[in-house]
Amino acid sequence: MRVVIIGGGAGGLSTASNIRKYDKDADITVITRDKHVAYSPCAIPYVMCGEVESFDDIIMHTPEDYRDRNIKILTETEVEGVFPEKKTVTYRRGEEAGEIPYDVLVIATGGSPFIPPVEGVDLEGVFTIRSLTDGEKIAEWASKSKSAVVVGAGLIGLEMAYGLLRMGLEVTVTEMLPQIVPRSLDPDMAAIVQEYLEEKGIRVILGKALERITGDERVERVMVGDECIDADMVILATGVRPEKKLAEMAGCETGQWAVRVNERMQTSVPDIYAVGDCVEVHDAITGFRTQSPLGSAAVRQAKVAAKNIAGMDAVFRPVLNAMVSKIGELEFGSVGLTEVTALQNGIKVVSGKKRALTKARYYPGAERIDVKMICDLNGRIIGCQIVAKERVAERIDTMSLAISQGMTCAELAETEFSYAPPVSMVIDPIILAAEDACEKLKRVNNKKAE
Amino acid sequence: MRVVIIGGGAGGLSTASNIRKYDKDADITVITRDKHVAYSPCAIPYVMCGEVESFDDIIMHTPEDYRDRNIKILTETEVEGVFPEKKTVTYRRGEEAGEIPYDVLVIATGGSPFIPPVEGVDLEGVFTIRSLTDGEKIAEWASKSKSAVVVGAGLIGLEMAYGLLRMGLEVTVTEMLPQIVPRSLDPDMAAIVQEYLEEKGIRVILGKALERITGDERVERVMVGDECIDADMVILATGVRPEKKLAEMAGCETGQWAVRVNERMQTSVPDIYAVGDCVEVHDAITGFRTQSPLGSAAVRQAKVAAKNIAGMDAVFRPVLNAMVSKIGELEFGSVGLTEVTALQNGIKVVSGKKRALTKARYYPGAERIDVKMICDLNGRIIGCQIVAKERVAERIDTMSLAISQGMTCAELAETEFSYAPPVSMVIDPIILAAEDACEKLKRVNNKKAE
Repeated sequence: MRVVIIGGGAGGLSTASNIRKYDKDADITVITRDKHVAYSPCAIPYVMCGEVESFDDIIMHTPEDYRDRNIKILTETEVEGVFPEKKTVTYRRGEEAGEIPYDVLVIATGGSPFIPPVEGVDLEGVFTIRSLTDGEKIAEWASKSKSAVVVGAGLIGLEMAYGLLRMGLEVTVTEMLPQIVPRSLDPDMAAIVQEYLEEKGIRVILGKALERITGDERVERVMVGDECIDADMVILATGVRPEKKLAEMAGCETGQWAVRVNERMQTSVPDIYAVGDCVEVHDAITGFRTQSPLGSAAVRQAKVAAKNIAGMDAVFRPVLNAMVSKIGELEFGSVGLTEVTALQNGIKVVSGKKRALTKARYYPGAERIDVKMICDLNGRIIGCQIVAKERVAERIDTMSLAISQGMTCAELAETEFSYAPPVSMVIDPIILAAEDACEKLKRVNNKKAE
Repeated sequence: MRVVIIGGGAGGLSTASNIRKYDKDADITVITRDKHVAYSPCAIPYVMCGEVESFDDIIMHTPEDYRDRNIKILTETEVEGVFPEKKTVTYRRGEEAGEIPYDVLVIATGGSPFIPPVEGVDLEGVFTIRSLTDGEKIAEWASKSKSAVVVGAGLIGLEMAYGLLRMGLEVTVTEMLPQIVPRSLDPDMAAIVQEYLEEKGIRVILGKALERITGDERVERVMVGDECIDADMVILATGVRPEKKLAEMAGCETGQWAVRVNERMQTSVPDIYAVGDCVEVHDAITGFRTQSPLGSAAVRQAKVAAKNIAGMDAVFRPVLNAMVSKIGELEFGSVGLTEVTALQNGIKVVSGKKRALTKARYYPGAERIDVKMICDLNGRIIGCQIVAKERVAERIDTMSLAISQGMTCAELAETEFSYAPPVSMVIDPIILAAEDACEKLKRVNNKKAE
């Protein structure tokens, strides 16, 4: 079986590795535009802020490592065409062009940064961030800069902003919407993260759109709304658009967001699979199609695709978009719907909230923790957000499990959690938030009954 | 309503506080033998090892704090009799004796340390550990000592051993069974913890029973098996026996382990409840009666008792004994059955195992993590043990939830976890252990089919 995989990111390479695990004989070729493979793009900001020493550290495997496992990697190679009738792809690498036949094709083309259609985005010193090479260029430019504007206050924007701050730059983050992290956090929880960033010295401007970038060849000033900010560099972190061109060329059905796949990660074209940021998934709560542009989702999809390609049987379940980030000392995470997205989907909710501590209160290093739990009016938990300086990620995972199991806040409030003074409170903040949700639910239902 | 509560530990005081929350008018009296109330006995070892500064720090409330909430506390007071026919208890405080009527009585008498019936346990320098006063006495004696033997390698024994080590003593832990933490860890996982303790400088002797303690007035030598150890002090951490004397006096039914209660925490005698270490609970996996001598269990039972006493309706569910401890930098935890206890209960199992990391492997501070997941032959998860230098407690909570929801390893392996390089691996060690369990299960079932 000849498998060709387009894309050398988490989705593409995990598919390759997993197929090899299940099928020793498959002929596997990965084609990537990128110079590097198997690095962790999520870690780029952490190299910038100095927590990880160098960009080399975040390269986990070389093309040679894959070759040793009998996986061919073509780097810096562009796929130019996909021909499902004759089952081939054509590619170009510099001057060299070629054609490869496939029995199974996997499209893992990821996404490309969205560039706002305004004046000045092509000036020197304006960057988008997607690849390791982007990261290296940004770090290089930043080392000669004094100030930066980051446009977009999603995860990548904030993580990059903090990286630049730690490199010694004066940093402003601008966001069109009235809050930071609008995809994953409600305004009240986002405010806690914003306060931390501002304490660290990042300026945050909300509710203003990027108007233009000006300068003579290189960036000098950024206009957001009515405000003019001097800056030596600009990072456009204004979202990522799925790369669906090749899939469309192959005749694969696409939807509002990206490439359509079934739960086995198959596109509408026989023997073509797709995984990662370029595909649409289903939201586990609303049932609607959505995007899940997370490395962890790509890896899970890759495993499903690989199993099916290798003749086994696997399905990819609807997503809860469990995410976590760490900026400086602050961890924040989210899973399921926010209060805002629930209301947008016509779901009435109550939100249990609790501010507590991560350890027994007398224990040195006990940190404040904020938990917000979103429940529908039957008490079913449909989302959770947590902010604290430690131990957030695993609590998000606990909540991902609770939501996927359809638990109510009342059931969760009765669940048994572990306890020891150096690592937890005798009643976990999650349980306290669930109890608060139960109380609020009671009040709402009593009012209804009146 | 007059409520009398016997016992000022986690069970008794949480019951008092919770009743007050639900019933502003109840007349609440707590009677305790102890000098202090509302301290965290679990934290005593952490004061000894210097992580918490003083014993005063772990006292969370004074009797006055309770008085302010209209809860009477009688300290250093011994209940002498319980008379259900006339609904009174009699007590003695030094010379003073009295009788108090009750409408509802709550027995929260906890447990007392078991003292092995051997020669020398009454020598000066031999201690048991239960109360803050015990902790103070041990710390005082230890400050003048050079070496200690801790008998019993359960949680309390090991935590105390580490505390004494940090105070500068030469410490030996002895355990009759062939492994440490026999209640919660399988031998393979216990070995990881033991290795850490030995690295730190604690000597561990397994499979040898305490024969006698010798010395002239004060401890000088300890005989375990055929071995003689010089020591200035001995801590007997050989388990705790439920204090059921008063309950028996009141005519409450008791079982093999302790006081019998129904799921509303009611004893067999009308208007007498019992909570905490003195009661029996049901094991969620085996269905059998067992003990759950954990502060977290006492607090959850207290809430159930208080709600029922206040006229609401609540039940206490069978337990999974979710526990966690931290010794030095090492966290370890367990929930549900171990492989050993499963086999003892006639349950055939497979164990998924994974050694992985707590963060992305290039991230500074990534620590080794070991996960062992026990599944029955239908794949249902019935237990999990985790050892690592960080982020164990919340993973145990995740597993507690998975087990309580009846999840199989296959379902868990498909669950969505969060990911960011500074806080997790792209595939969580729990998922990897679940996948390992699935593989092993397949092999077992294939063998059966042959």
